[in-house]
Amino acid sequence: MQQIIRVDMLSGNASSLDLPSKYLNYGGRALTSKILSDEVPANSNPLGKNNKCVIATGLFAGSPFPCSNRCSIGAKSPLTGGIKESNVGGMVAFKLSKLNIQAVIIEEQPSESTGLYILKLEETGGHLISASEYSGYTTYSLASALKQRFGKKIGLLMIGPAGELQLSAAGIAATDLHGNPCDYAGRGGMGAVLGSKQLKAIVIDDLGIQNVSDYVDRQKFTSISKAFTRKLKETKKDLHKFGTPIEIEMSNEFGYLPTRNFSTGCFEGASKIGGEAMRQRIKERKGPGGTSCMPGCPISCKHTYVDSQSQYVTSSLEYETIALLGSNCGIDDLDAIAEMDRLCDEIGLDTMEMGAAIGVAMEADQLSFGDAKGAIALLKEIPKNTPMARIIGNGAEITGKIFGVKRVPVIKGQGMAGYDPRANKGIGVTYTTSPMGADHTAGCVTPGRKGFDHNKEYDVLKPDCQEELSLDLQVMVAILDAMGICFFVGLDTTTLKILVELHNAKYGQNIIFDNLVELGEQMLVVEHKFNLAAGKPVVERMPEFFEIEPLPPHKTVYDVRSELVITEMSNKLGLK
Amino acid sequence: MQQIIRVDMLSGNASSLDLPSKYLNYGGRALTSKILSDEVPANSNPLGKNNKCVIATGLFAGSPFPCSNRCSIGAKSPLTGGIKESNVGGMVAFKLSKLNIQAVIIEEQPSESTGLYILKLEETGGHLISASEYSGYTTYSLASALKQRFGKKIGLLMIGPAGELQLSAAGIAATDLHGNPCDYAGRGGMGAVLGSKQLKAIVIDDLGIQNVSDYVDRQKFTSISKAFTRKLKETKKDLHKFGTPIEIEMSNEFGYLPTRNFSTGCFEGASKIGGEAMRQRIKERKGPGGTSCMPGCPISCKHTYVDSQSQYVTSSLEYETIALLGSNCGIDDLDAIAEMDRLCDEIGLDTMEMGAAIGVAMEADQLSFGDAKGAIALLKEIPKNTPMARIIGNGAEITGKIFGVKRVPVIKGQGMAGYDPRANKGIGVTYTTSPMGADHTAGCVTPGRKGFDHNKEYDVLKPDCQEELSLDLQVMVAILDAMGICFFVGLDTTTLKILVELHNAKYGQNIIFDNLVELGEQMLVVEHKFNLAAGKPVVERMPEFFEIEPLPPHKTVYDVRSELVITEMSNKLGLK
Repeated sequence: MQQIIRVDMLSGNASSLDLPSKYLNYGGRALTSKILSDEVPANSNPLGKNNKCVIATGLFAGSPFPCSNRCSIGAKSPLTGGIKESNVGGMVAFKLSKLNIQAVIIEEQPSESTGLYILKLEETGGHLISASEYSGYTTYSLASALKQRFGKKIGLLMIGPAGELQLSAAGIAATDLHGNPCDYAGRGGMGAVLGSKQLKAIVIDDLGIQNVSDYVDRQKFTSISKAFTRKLKETKKDLHKFGTPIEIEMSNEFGYLPTRNFSTGCFEGASKIGGEAMRQRIKERKGPGGTSCMPGCPISCKHTYVDSQSQYVTSSLEYETIALLGSNCGIDDLDAIAEMDRLCDEIGLDTMEMGAAIGVAMEADQLSFGDAKGAIALLKEIPKNTPMARIIGNGAEITGKIFGVKRVPVIKGQGMAGYDPRANKGIGVTYTTSPMGADHTAGCVTPGRKGFDHNKEYDVLKPDCQEELSLDLQVMVAILDAMGICFFVGLDTTTLKILVELHNAKYGQNIIFDNLVELGEQMLVVEHKFNLAAGKPVVERMPEFFEIEPLPPHKTVYDVRSELVITEMSNKLGLK
Repeated sequence: MQQIIRVDMLSGNASSLDLPSKYLNYGGRALTSKILSDEVPANSNPLGKNNKCVIATGLFAGSPFPCSNRCSIGAKSPLTGGIKESNVGGMVAFKLSKLNIQAVIIEEQPSESTGLYILKLEETGGHLISASEYSGYTTYSLASALKQRFGKKIGLLMIGPAGELQLSAAGIAATDLHGNPCDYAGRGGMGAVLGSKQLKAIVIDDLGIQNVSDYVDRQKFTSISKAFTRKLKETKKDLHKFGTPIEIEMSNEFGYLPTRNFSTGCFEGASKIGGEAMRQRIKERKGPGGTSCMPGCPISCKHTYVDSQSQYVTSSLEYETIALLGSNCGIDDLDAIAEMDRLCDEIGLDTMEMGAAIGVAMEADQLSFGDAKGAIALLKEIPKNTPMARIIGNGAEITGKIFGVKRVPVIKGQGMAGYDPRANKGIGVTYTTSPMGADHTAGCVTPGRKGFDHNKEYDVLKPDCQEELSLDLQVMVAILDAMGICFFVGLDTTTLKILVELHNAKYGQNIIFDNLVELGEQMLVVEHKFNLAAGKPVVERMPEFFEIEPLPPHKTVYDVRSELVITEMSNKLGLK
């Protein structure tokens, strides 16, 4: 039987419970959102005792299906004020699945004077350990210390100083296959929530434990998975070779690469910070090749960036990080961007929110566009907890409000991902309508992407029917998130149909395609209902500047009609 | 014919137009909200070119009816993100009425490099004057300079450094009967909007002009007004004698006086900062007696606070200022509070928002409760435009978010007025449902207050039917706001019935009581619809701590059911 570990931070008690039957078909984001919706009052203060942090593995965690070990972390977000889920690769979900743990619920708060804790998860259940000696530790130092203390093979979730300071841009770091804390549940301030619970780290010790998952038809599950793995390896060669930074060149070409605080969609320095440049740089410096962020991924899109002495800097220099900390800040120096990425990882900050916030600070003349040294200094200031540190560390919206900036690229208080919605209108609809705020992962529209209707084509530059496409993709992503699967496996009906077969091979419930779609839709409904009760509308307004400032080079504004979007969302999801 | 002055800050052109017939029955807040609703896109950035600042006199401005010279100032608020109206006494409305000006609309924005402007309103219309030499001027210095330049008898609206810095807590100062800029359209950041238009001051020069208002039945109007004036003088003797600070003692007794950031409803130092203490202090120091904030007010509730040398400090040491900057900050020193009040007036800040923000900063341990010196230093820092200055100067919500504070007394981003909603539940409903955010003026519930049904009694400590009472009062206040009348004349049906007679005596439209009620309701509808289009719900959630932390001494939480409030508002106003 799958377990839930419920950790009461006030009493210090961690109890193991059988997964209640009502949660049997829920995994990943479906489970985090359902538990939050059931247990957290919508009006609770995100940093208060009534908020909870829920960590859940997907329905296929630990299985042979590729890329199925993403781990969902959910809470009411201090950044968006709504329900949030942020998922992360790394070793966590895989190890939790070996321990038979479907979810961990962190609730209540200790008194401040009791200091920090570590939660250790192992075969005998969960145990809280006093850990104030790690106060102020950055993530890499903490990972070293904890591996030394608990064994090299442990998996880790951790917060850095930013999480301890309860900054809204604080994320939760997960250790990757090599034990480096560079994978991040970055978005929405989940690190601040853990910080408010005074939980510095979660140690997962699965040493010597075998994966004993049940399958109704293990052979079928394995054979489908193997075939799918082969296909992925073939079709994702470029992603493996160049990593996600190859999208920098694409976004630049399509004219929606955020540049100098979303003031233009093309960056003259794009070729210096894209996938080709990064590959070349790593090759010259004799860095390693592509690797995976989690066990069982044949794509291996992660690349380890090394410095001029061929020393490890980071393995998480991804597209979004480069788009936001690079072009969005007018910075075309990969070494500097890698240093900023590493700094964010060490301090425990979301690189995307930091890029958006620094871009806004640049717009406010606090530093100049392109000033990499200034940006690095700003990041280094954050653990010092100065007023300026707390401004930037609380994200782009606050930074904009503090400095009276009119061009602030946020939705629901969250900095936008690396796609300008004026030249990618579909993702604009995702930003305004996702219960999560301006996440690309919530329904990533890219040119050529299709919804459930295979015959229908969409043009990212035109407003027509983008609300249909976005909602379809939001539903598809929700399904993948429930399974714990990276959306690089394919955001399309073909992939979803394979998931139906897999689900039946594992759980034997004879579900059909429509059941999966219903699951995805119901996840969105649960999340939107939480947000409505928290006073957040289903459809947010796009910041005005996107509607009135044409974006070069296409000279388009964001002109998706908000009424159409409201109607689409309300009708399809049955929300008022 | 009443005029509208439309000022285009981009072209520098100010044109006089006849009041369009569609606005003939609108005055004050009814007119500011209607024009904003007609002309400002709901999604516009409050500090951007598409926002407008509308200044309007009430329907009875310049008339013999007492207390009818309040001036409404409206815009989309940088603080609440919704539609806003803040009204102020002083000489403005009276002088505008003499110039036959019903409203002034400030629109567009000049380029930053052109610097500041003054708008001069006189018999020949409106004229923009370049005024960069006044950059950084505090309000009292500016008032002196402008009176020297344009004549002693001018009326003034001005912003201080806070408005120039476009801080969300910046208000607009109006000169009083003595030419002191201590009357404030304080709430909602109207000063920041004027700052974004680079308009430093509005000079109203009515020298030698006679009031020539038309009346269908002047004699009737005058005789009703005279009788009403006599009644006011008799019934408001205490208000005249002690001023609004007498409410400090009352609120303290009722247990809803905000104390140390809304952590308790009684302040041990209340007797040192209330109306009795203030009267005694002024008497000892041989200060002057009560005076009016505007022409034609028989109540004269303003008192001039003088220092130990009997020198003028301020004439606006009102209840709300003392409650927020005094008890809410744990400060029991009237001299210190008066100094803070004067500082806010000089810098151009809303005293209420400052009190709420400093209270939150105290909760965040940035300074201690009761630290008057620290609070004064913080206020003095604001014109220096440091990060900390911009945090405090942008109000309580931002301050709370920056420092991760869980007890932040705001609704719609605006700091609460001086009534804790746990021991005054009716005003809590006003806070959560007024289109304006947490204003007391939007529907001021106090013990014994009644709605339209005279037979119905309400208990401020009980949640029952507070949504009915609040909405009734919101409608009543809206009517008074449309007339430009101070609500001290009486927030009740008896007074409204007199207004019906007055309206008919002046305009001859034979309106009935229900027409007035309909006007008030429609004002709320117009405002809520604007907010809905801006993405703001009709009913906001009360911050969680009011729902879970019982307030001493009554040990009550805020337990008005949000669903009931939503139903009441939706049904009565026809809003979804």
